[in-house]
Amino acid sequence: MIEKSEKDSREGLLINITGNGKGKTTSALGTCMRALGWGWQVSIIQFIKNKQENGEKRFAATIAENLEMVQCGLGLTHNSRASDAQHIEAARNAWEKAKSHLRAGKADLMVFDELNIVLKLGWLDVDDVINALRKRPKRVHVIITGRNAPDKLIAASDLVSEIKEIKHPYKSGIKARKGIEY
Amino acid sequence: MIEKSEKDSREGLLINITGNGKGKTTSALGTCMRALGWGWQVSIIQFIKNKQENGEKRFAATIAENLEMVQCGLGLTHNSRASDAQHIEAARNAWEKAKSHLRAGKADLMVFDELNIVLKLGWLDVDDVINALRKRPKRVHVIITGRNAPDKLIAASDLVSEIKEIKHPYKSGIKARKGIEY
Repeated sequence: MIEKSEKDSREGLLINITGNGKGKTTSALGTCMRALGWGWQVSIIQFIKNKQENGEKRFAATIAENLEMVQCGLGLTHNSRASDAQHIEAARNAWEKAKSHLRAGKADLMVFDELNIVLKLGWLDVDDVINALRKRPKRVHVIITGRNAPDKLIAASDLVSEIKEIKHPYKSGIKARKGIEY
Repeated sequence: MIEKSEKDSREGLLINITGNGKGKTTSALGTCMRALGWGWQVSIIQFIKNKQENGEKRFAATIAENLEMVQCGLGLTHNSRASDAQHIEAARNAWEKAKSHLRAGKADLMVFDELNIVLKLGWLDVDDVINALRKRPKRVHVIITGRNAPDKLIAASDLVSEIKEIKHPYKSGIKARKGIEY
């Protein structure tokens, strides 16, 4: 079902990119590229991703004047050693940072990468998140990514895309690739 | 159904991002950002898009040493005045450029933006396209975007995502927005 949302064209959109297919984070990053092209300020907060090198981070470092990117997670892989309590603490710290950035309104576009997962895992309260999103400066666009977006957050969003995996090389044992997956 | 593909991990992937939801081109652009972060050469050929300003083009101009971006289309809007013959000519010229870039192998990642649409409209022959993709230098990754990816091209791809529209502000009369949609 395609739902409607009522927004003035000068108001920032709340966008959610969810689903099990490849392309959620990259879609958000590509929108950042567009926004940067127009000279906007952009801020990306990566919730799950840890300090490991990735292409977007290396890239952001080259254009640091307009694009801020912080990785606030502890990773979420089978060999990640963080406890639930540590993940929850990291998520809360990331969310405090996200909220203070939202309130300050310095960025025209903010990306909260993997926030859907954090909410799904119950590390943050979805009502608190929606509340803070509602109170943001009106012009600010927000893109949230991650699988399994909560229904309440979808209801609060202006634009939601679901990326479905049709075919993925992981199935035949290809590892994540530099430049494509990270 | 998720199909398998057999690829050596040093071989470039053929990726297709299709579906009716927002996020196809931006997903490709975000992958370019990752690739650029790793110092790769990247080339983007936009098939349908015309010379109008867009955020990605403005952005590409700021990092021209590693990222090439050419717009080869005539637009595809209700008020586009190009004839079918003109569209076909533009698509063929774009494809010749794409093929010669593929053959030369100067880029590590190439994006053929909206090529799915061009194929769907019959402006290029899908077998010719698949043939040229098969003959590309093995290390080169290719991302093709656009609605309605042809079945034959999906079968030839390593990774396919379908972006489904769950909710879109266009439905309530919001126009395309700078920095988000272009």
